[in-house]
Amino acid sequence: MTETTRTGERPETSPPFEFDADTAVEAVGEGRLTAELSGRWGVGPALNGGYGLAVATRAIGRSLGHPDPLTVTGHFTAALEEGSADISVDVAKAGRNLSTAHAELRQGGRERLRTLATFAELPEDPAPELTDGAPPDLPPPEECVGNEPGVPNPFGIAIGERFLYRVPAEEAGRMAGRPKGEASVRCWVRFADGRQPDLLGLICVIDALPPAAAEIGVDGWAPTVELTVHLRARPVPGWLAVALRTRFVQSGYLEEDGEVWDSAGRLVAQSRQLARLPA
Amino acid sequence: MTETTRTGERPETSPPFEFDADTAVEAVGEGRLTAELSGRWGVGPALNGGYGLAVATRAIGRSLGHPDPLTVTGHFTAALEEGSADISVDVAKAGRNLSTAHAELRQGGRERLRTLATFAELPEDPAPELTDGAPPDLPPPEECVGNEPGVPNPFGIAIGERFLYRVPAEEAGRMAGRPKGEASVRCWVRFADGRQPDLLGLICVIDALPPAAAEIGVDGWAPTVELTVHLRARPVPGWLAVALRTRFVQSGYLEEDGEVWDSAGRLVAQSRQLARLPA
Repeated sequence: MTETTRTGERPETSPPFEFDADTAVEAVGEGRLTAELSGRWGVGPALNGGYGLAVATRAIGRSLGHPDPLTVTGHFTAALEEGSADISVDVAKAGRNLSTAHAELRQGGRERLRTLATFAELPEDPAPELTDGAPPDLPPPEECVGNEPGVPNPFGIAIGERFLYRVPAEEAGRMAGRPKGEASVRCWVRFADGRQPDLLGLICVIDALPPAAAEIGVDGWAPTVELTVHLRARPVPGWLAVALRTRFVQSGYLEEDGEVWDSAGRLVAQSRQLARLPA
Repeated sequence: MTETTRTGERPETSPPFEFDADTAVEAVGEGRLTAELSGRWGVGPALNGGYGLAVATRAIGRSLGHPDPLTVTGHFTAALEEGSADISVDVAKAGRNLSTAHAELRQGGRERLRTLATFAELPEDPAPELTDGAPPDLPPPEECVGNEPGVPNPFGIAIGERFLYRVPAEEAGRMAGRPKGEASVRCWVRFADGRQPDLLGLICVIDALPPAAAEIGVDGWAPTVELTVHLRARPVPGWLAVALRTRFVQSGYLEEDGEVWDSAGRLVAQSRQLARLPA
């Protein structure tokens, strides 16, 4: 994707950007790759699931003939940790329009993440035929409150330093310990180092906000069992508007639905994850 | 699941029910199974994706120690056809609370469906902690219109004979060629032969309605690329209320979100699929 800025809001830093460096994969054999998972994407001792899913997706892409992840599902079988990972990829289909493969990501001999993905080539101009929805209702980023690049995350959450977040002042309650009583979050997000969004980045972005369920008092880490991301269009440069919502908490599990809209007002990704309630 | 009727609305037929017979899998080796896919679940020459996903999920369940599918994703790499299928299952994790495996389903040596699933044991009483939603607004089944058991489907769609459907009279427009202009469908559904719903059945039920996008004039078969189903509670016997909605059609793809509510008014399944627009 382009690394030139279009909106000119923020000076670009030089590549390699953090996300590209930290999702790099190296082929070491037929369908076998290695990656070095970085603690920069940590949420406490465990790493962010969307980051891990992006690494696995990048590994899968190396084995497929299509450039764009279209639908990606990860099942998280153990916490991801900083350090090296071995990834094996097995191709199910290499078709004309679509190609499909799964990946197994292991650390220390233990499988942490199994990912199933289908790739395609998305059109340059997606020309929406139906848009029954709208970007989240957010004031412009410059009228919102948020963090600054290079400033340590006040909660010690490393991934919180990888992104800039901009939320309406009245939505910033949770940071001050005032849950709003509705399981939804809306927020502007962009990479803190100036990297522009692309499809791979969206897989991480959509999982990089505080959980919507925190807004109704679900405290503690609700580990992701499964995360599915649909990539619906290539994002243009600029801020991304992210909306998360949890509607059902039952049987010990909750779902979280996500949408990401780009700065042109186009839906670029949808997600749903199933997470296990803290015991 | 119980096969006794609770509502008494309809006399039970004797097992084996069609769905149980047609999703049967036989182990033929370590992680290797066979199934006989039945044309009774056809949508034209191809078989219904939810039916195929149920077969694959049943095969996966044979290798896992937990009874209940919790989250299941299938990537459809070729059309499913009537006839025998070979299924291989590989276990990613056999944990205390959760177990995860993937399956590869082949017919005629060609892989048709790759499935990734996590199983758990759902509680008997799911005790919802948050329900931000409601069953679809439907009159009681007896005030709706629909098909009768044993009557051939007027469109020659075999799967349409496996279920009883009950829709409000004003929603039956599509059958009469009058799309309503909104990409949503709501409908009561149950197995036509009296089989009561269970988690495996929900995987098929949630994909067994006409596509919501038909309501906005998307004609022709939109093949499912990927279907994910979250099983959220064990359904009680009786009619199931299903709601489908498509909100975004762009880049040549559309998503369809589904919800299934049981006769006790509880959300029992959520789904999202990505389908490719007819060319």
